[in-house]
Amino acid sequence: MSAGRVLEVYLDLLSQPCRAVHILLNCTRIPHRVRTVALRKGEQRTPEFTQLNPMQKVPVLVDDGFVLTESDAILKYLVTKYHAPQHWYPRQPERRARVDEYTAWHHSNTRPHAARVFILEVLVPAQTGSPVDGVVLQRAVAQLDDTLDKLESMFLRRQPFLCGDDVSLADLLALCELMQPLGGDRDVLQNRPQLQRWRSRVQSAVSDAFDHAHSVLYALRDRRKAKL
Amino acid sequence: MSAGRVLEVYLDLLSQPCRAVHILLNCTRIPHRVRTVALRKGEQRTPEFTQLNPMQKVPVLVDDGFVLTESDAILKYLVTKYHAPQHWYPRQPERRARVDEYTAWHHSNTRPHAARVFILEVLVPAQTGSPVDGVVLQRAVAQLDDTLDKLESMFLRRQPFLCGDDVSLADLLALCELMQPLGGDRDVLQNRPQLQRWRSRVQSAVSDAFDHAHSVLYALRDRRKAKL
Repeated sequence: MSAGRVLEVYLDLLSQPCRAVHILLNCTRIPHRVRTVALRKGEQRTPEFTQLNPMQKVPVLVDDGFVLTESDAILKYLVTKYHAPQHWYPRQPERRARVDEYTAWHHSNTRPHAARVFILEVLVPAQTGSPVDGVVLQRAVAQLDDTLDKLESMFLRRQPFLCGDDVSLADLLALCELMQPLGGDRDVLQNRPQLQRWRSRVQSAVSDAFDHAHSVLYALRDRRKAKL
Repeated sequence: MSAGRVLEVYLDLLSQPCRAVHILLNCTRIPHRVRTVALRKGEQRTPEFTQLNPMQKVPVLVDDGFVLTESDAILKYLVTKYHAPQHWYPRQPERRARVDEYTAWHHSNTRPHAARVFILEVLVPAQTGSPVDGVVLQRAVAQLDDTLDKLESMFLRRQPFLCGDDVSLADLLALCELMQPLGGDRDVLQNRPQLQRWRSRVQSAVSDAFDHAHSVLYALRDRRKAKL
């Protein structure tokens, strides 16, 4: 493979779906090059990046000229194209359907609800200079709690990972979202022993790749703590 | 195959994702039995249905004991498991990734934005007896317009269907959402010739299955027209 053809991914590790892609690439040792797109500097709106992805969003994958957006699609493509271990996205139709079922649900539940808590607690105050409205935040936390209840009572009811007995790309997408409020020093799994055990299992399964992907988020939390 | 093992789908044809499943099943002639769950009568909250799907949502597929929710996952499972023509969900990784890319995007764009216009214009007035707030409705229509712009300028820019040269399950999911405001006698594609041509192509590709799935929505529109 020539140097020009190595897989490239455009990421900002403060973006939850970017971390999921980063973890999968490192766990599966797929050769790749990371191109950082710093969202806080607006680098997703440069003419060069807009030409690559008119939606102006990360992550973006470029594989020998093939440009793909949407983390969900990128993760599934990577497992398939690079023959990653099957547990990430099983080929057996019923097991694969379980992963597709979670990822479809994810987009209207885990993703928006966890992101909203982070946006209200971290991004809005940073942009406006004012603390968040407590009532609005409590409503967002309650909505996230409802999603956490469903993760426990439905997806994790009878199995160690969201879609079965082994870690899959669904666990990466979910956990990277649920880590995000940590940027505001909020551990949303604090009183959730069942979800905490799941988090530990996912962390063990992906080993160093987890902390590697989350180092920027941990640094954000530590800077905020130091300021208080 | 014994009678007890025939594929069952729990649907309400006034639900957009249910219509997508219904169209695919009829187009591909997969033997199945439809069990109607009338959402307007709250049948999704009966103990029997809640046991089947604790999320209390349609569609649900039951295939020889395997219970699957989420239309996106159901459509992909049906194509794979029942060896439907490949164009619905291509096996080639790059072409498949295009369908996964649209469906991931769909959940945060086409689906919520088209649904919201229908909810505001039809469901809320039916439930409260009051007409919708015009400002709120206009904001929802503007958000849907932005999604329609993206469908035209990105997904349909260089190709006749959302994910390539042939109809796929992405087109079914998208078009069934965009038809929904017709229940309030609003054609959201009225001033959109490019999207109208796409709609015609999808309708031709699926033939009678389209009007069959939409008959309940057409009846809703006609009843509302008769009342005015």
